[in-house]
Amino acid sequence: MRSMTWRKPMPSDARMVFKGVIFEVWQWEQTIYDGSAVVFERLRRSDAAQVILVVDGMILLQEQYQPDTDRFLSLPGGRCEPDETPLQSAQRELIEESGYESDEWELFQTDEPTGKIEWKNYTFIARGGGKKQDTALDAGEKITHRWITFDDFLMLSDDPLFRSNSLIPTLLRARLDPQKREDLKKRLGIA
Amino acid sequence: MRSMTWRKPMPSDARMVFKGVIFEVWQWEQTIYDGSAVVFERLRRSDAAQVILVVDGMILLQEQYQPDTDRFLSLPGGRCEPDETPLQSAQRELIEESGYESDEWELFQTDEPTGKIEWKNYTFIARGGGKKQDTALDAGEKITHRWITFDDFLMLSDDPLFRSNSLIPTLLRARLDPQKREDLKKRLGIA
Repeated sequence: MRSMTWRKPMPSDARMVFKGVIFEVWQWEQTIYDGSAVVFERLRRSDAAQVILVVDGMILLQEQYQPDTDRFLSLPGGRCEPDETPLQSAQRELIEESGYESDEWELFQTDEPTGKIEWKNYTFIARGGGKKQDTALDAGEKITHRWITFDDFLMLSDDPLFRSNSLIPTLLRARLDPQKREDLKKRLGIA
Repeated sequence: MRSMTWRKPMPSDARMVFKGVIFEVWQWEQTIYDGSAVVFERLRRSDAAQVILVVDGMILLQEQYQPDTDRFLSLPGGRCEPDETPLQSAQRELIEESGYESDEWELFQTDEPTGKIEWKNYTFIARGGGKKQDTALDAGEKITHRWITFDDFLMLSDDPLFRSNSLIPTLLRARLDPQKREDLKKRLGIA
């Protein structure tokens, strides 16, 4: 898992200089090593949450289109709303995108995909559950579902359609180390 | 390697709505699946180039501080200037940060770290070379160097101070697959 702490927090005098529909741009004056001051810039965007849903030993995978993308594979998930905890976002996205609810949730890993953007990606494990409603997709989503085995889940790390920068290293490490593989299987509740 | 093509190019009517010191914010109206139109947003920033420099079978690693980060490990590299090819950026960054020049260059991989930012990371291999000048660091950089073996290079994929989202999966795959390991070693020109 990527460290959460390598970028220092933005200083308190940082100010928002632009607010778009997804991104905010923040700037501050930073004194650098020769004593001069330059404008530093960082972005903020809403955090995101995704879900590894495991039911009867199988993992839910989505195949998805969005208006500005080609086909890709992903886990259920999406953007956190301002009034939600990451867990609430994960639970909402799971039921909206798949119709499934689960009672057993655990935070699996947290990643910061890029240094100059304040943006966390939360991955949750949801063990067990059932379909509670039809999906309620956004008008900007087309999603189909399938259930895959644990071995297929690990091999997603070689699938060019699966683009999770946060999970690919985790899956590769589980393929590399039998102990990590067993630990992951156990955490997912797969016998 | 990550596919270069999953996000479609920005449409021709996209317009830049903000230009900061690093990031540009672009927006356009996108018709979504229910026929309605919403504002889509994407960022642009300068591409980046990094270098795997191999001299006498050893690889150059940097330990670095920047004013807004803790200590981290990286390869020589940095932002591409507007008038440069990625190769020119890699060559300039190598000599500025390390003082080294090399005659034998090859593009190793190209990555797009995140979907909503038009931003490519180029990784080059430079085989052989020598120190031509002292380093010429930016006032915002503090860098020290060391030479590491191929095995240590592979194990950077487990070092929390090494934060290359583009190289970590490549190194993990080389550890996982003896053929990929030999191929990588050969491409680096290490016997």
